[in-house]
Amino acid sequence: MGRIPEIHKGQAKTVVKTVMDKHYMRLALKEAEAAFEENEVPVGAVIVIEDRIIATARNRRESACDPTAHAELMAIREGAQRTGNWRLTDATLYVTKEPCVMCAGAMVNARLGRLVYGCEDERYGAVKSRFQLAYDPNLNHTIKVVSGIMEKECADILTRFFVKLRTTL
Amino acid sequence: MGRIPEIHKGQAKTVVKTVMDKHYMRLALKEAEAAFEENEVPVGAVIVIEDRIIATARNRRESACDPTAHAELMAIREGAQRTGNWRLTDATLYVTKEPCVMCAGAMVNARLGRLVYGCEDERYGAVKSRFQLAYDPNLNHTIKVVSGIMEKECADILTRFFVKLRTTL
Repeated sequence: MGRIPEIHKGQAKTVVKTVMDKHYMRLALKEAEAAFEENEVPVGAVIVIEDRIIATARNRRESACDPTAHAELMAIREGAQRTGNWRLTDATLYVTKEPCVMCAGAMVNARLGRLVYGCEDERYGAVKSRFQLAYDPNLNHTIKVVSGIMEKECADILTRFFVKLRTTL
Repeated sequence: MGRIPEIHKGQAKTVVKTVMDKHYMRLALKEAEAAFEENEVPVGAVIVIEDRIIATARNRRESACDPTAHAELMAIREGAQRTGNWRLTDATLYVTKEPCVMCAGAMVNARLGRLVYGCEDERYGAVKSRFQLAYDPNLNHTIKVVSGIMEKECADILTRFFVKLRTTL
């Protein structure tokens, strides 16, 4: 919580946070807030290519009745549609929470260039916490990763959601 | 190739092939053949609940311009829509090739009951070959797995596709 954004070990030295990272993470957080209001686990995502937003999405698993409707996966689908190219090599994906296995796999499949996430998911995170799929030598693509951008805000909204869930059950 | 379908180590003893497995794998293979004709990597999938087909899909990455449009992921989305339930706990998913990381993660997210696949993907397979995500104690769901159903046919169509691709490049 609140610690300095870190550069993942094993990453190229060029993987640094940019001045815009916080700006785009704030937009991803807005998506997470909208998911919160819709009673969805509050995770939001934004995809950017050369300072142009090409996709925004939020978790819609319940409302879409779709177990794959995580923010990241939907943003990737939208981004590929918008650019007319399923390879998102030049793109940065911002997401409020460390991606799960499915979403990290989708990022590899999309040849995503760069991933910036907010808080860690110690239980199921597939980039750093439980699995390290963004830079696995067994896979055919590796992704530059920056974590911890607006970490506290991204974690707080999840905590608030699960507190609300427990009190309304 | 052609060896007896195996029950994965560490799986419950109840994970056995059924008499219908070959039937449904043949349908998945028909989907793969359609993908072949569409110049897509030929992988097909079928989802069944209590001997009722609830989804069929084939790889459409190129034609849909969608890096997530693998047969399994699309079948999961369709199956959840059809049943009105994102939890596919009672379902069996048939797919001609061992799933990738993204698709294995989608199966865990969908709480898939049972997975039957044809041939292995030694490079990127995420159920047995490279990763073992269907029964990982770190994840919140494990999937019963049977492999090797119509293995030769499922592998052959992939081989034919990549031979065709090389000769037309």
